[in-house]
Amino acid sequence: MKPDAYARIRSALVENCPGSVAINSRLRDTLSLVAGNPGKLVRARLVLAAADRHGLERGAAERLACAVEYFHIASLLLDDLPCMDDAATRRGLPCAHRLYGEAATILGALAFINRAYALAGFAFAAYPSEIRLHATACLDSCLGPSGLVGGQAADLSFAQSDRSARAVSTIAVRKTGALFWLAVYFPALLAAPSAVELRLLKALCIYWGLAYQAADDLQDVMLDGNERAGDGDFGHDGALIRPNLAHVLGVSAARSRIARLVGQAFRTINRLDGLSRQWSYLGGFHHEFVEPMAGAVAA
Amino acid sequence: MKPDAYARIRSALVENCPGSVAINSRLRDTLSLVAGNPGKLVRARLVLAAADRHGLERGAAERLACAVEYFHIASLLLDDLPCMDDAATRRGLPCAHRLYGEAATILGALAFINRAYALAGFAFAAYPSEIRLHATACLDSCLGPSGLVGGQAADLSFAQSDRSARAVSTIAVRKTGALFWLAVYFPALLAAPSAVELRLLKALCIYWGLAYQAADDLQDVMLDGNERAGDGDFGHDGALIRPNLAHVLGVSAARSRIARLVGQAFRTINRLDGLSRQWSYLGGFHHEFVEPMAGAVAA
Repeated sequence: MKPDAYARIRSALVENCPGSVAINSRLRDTLSLVAGNPGKLVRARLVLAAADRHGLERGAAERLACAVEYFHIASLLLDDLPCMDDAATRRGLPCAHRLYGEAATILGALAFINRAYALAGFAFAAYPSEIRLHATACLDSCLGPSGLVGGQAADLSFAQSDRSARAVSTIAVRKTGALFWLAVYFPALLAAPSAVELRLLKALCIYWGLAYQAADDLQDVMLDGNERAGDGDFGHDGALIRPNLAHVLGVSAARSRIARLVGQAFRTINRLDGLSRQWSYLGGFHHEFVEPMAGAVAA
Repeated sequence: MKPDAYARIRSALVENCPGSVAINSRLRDTLSLVAGNPGKLVRARLVLAAADRHGLERGAAERLACAVEYFHIASLLLDDLPCMDDAATRRGLPCAHRLYGEAATILGALAFINRAYALAGFAFAAYPSEIRLHATACLDSCLGPSGLVGGQAADLSFAQSDRSARAVSTIAVRKTGALFWLAVYFPALLAAPSAVELRLLKALCIYWGLAYQAADDLQDVMLDGNERAGDGDFGHDGALIRPNLAHVLGVSAARSRIARLVGQAFRTINRLDGLSRQWSYLGGFHHEFVEPMAGAVAA
């Protein structure tokens, strides 16, 4: 991945940010807070790497990367609300709802979602209807009750489930896997993947999503009794009875699970590489983001 | 408008409702509550009348009608939240958040929004990219900070504005006019309207939106001291310092304003009728919905 990818996405995120019209100051502040304080932009960078590789026009690639990142941002804004995870901080700053109130936070999330749909619509506008229908169906299933929305609902009612590793994984696939799938599948649509390639890509996104969520779970547990203690938004999973692989399997088994998932992802990438050179960017992403993330929570 | 339009939309709303997958029971209950208790379906019926007239295929017409209605439903779910209008009842039943909690209500609204975008995408899929680009841009501006989201944010901070009739109207155009515009403009896109026709359609939606919102404001004030008293979600505008034309102008001037707006809408429809017979359904809608609504709040 080119070193300027991060800067390129950061500036696209600001440029495409909703709210260039005259709006209420709390809503404007919410939008600025989030757009001005990005995280690692993992999903957006994956979109950009894929879009560049599959020959998507530069502007369309950036719009697609922003769309996926805005969906992600909106889900973070809403997940942090008092009625959801009741978080105090996000990316080192107070959460938007603590600064500007719940109403502005909900409306800010909606503004990002609305802009994300528009950007996806613009990015795909020139492509054949078959591709657009696939993209529309993909958004419908990844973000609705069978994806992000359903995953978050299941997350909140985890205490009433059987609290098994299987239940934890099902939620992680819907919450974390869905956005990886959007990030990979959207640009891949332009590469006309075969049925075998599609199946492998889907499996890869599930491995990545599960590995990412499990590493996040481990971090929650590892840091609960250490430096994160006293910070309201961390180590919350236990208190809130939220799905956490390290709680249901134990830390050691969760670490083994992550190592296994990373290995499965790597082998899936190798199979894709064997089918076509166009999937080589997946290996680059895996080495740059997935392996270090897994390494950070290894024993 | 055909007498079966209402039944046709009701069944399409249930059929297209998100949540056919296995989901959390509170989310499912929220979706069922709303889809099973529709209001007058004014916007959806306008879409259907327009789509049928402009020759949109029957299934696509219903999908578009559902899309606009789902956007409307989502805005009602969110507007009623404690951090917004803190309403107790909606359409004669307890609000979703009072029955199933705030989290399920927010996620339910997102599910409807997500499905609405998908339905709009499917409805337009077969049309030329120029039409689709217009539709995408229209959704972007009608629902984002320059439309519904911005209008709701301004609504909530009305107390900090100059509280003028002009400020009230600006908010009404963004909140109420935007959905009328979607309802009229979406199907009209297929009729390839001229620039003059588009300008008249836009003006019509503003008149309708302002008249509708003003009638709602008047009802809030008229019923505040009467049968609605004691019901937590009515007559709230005054207590919450929300925009209300009858508060800033007085009841009598607000009534005159509504009568004037209804007249302006009627004359605009006549001008459109003079340009092409394809706009005749607008007059039918005006007589069936707008005039009775204005009559209900007349002295």
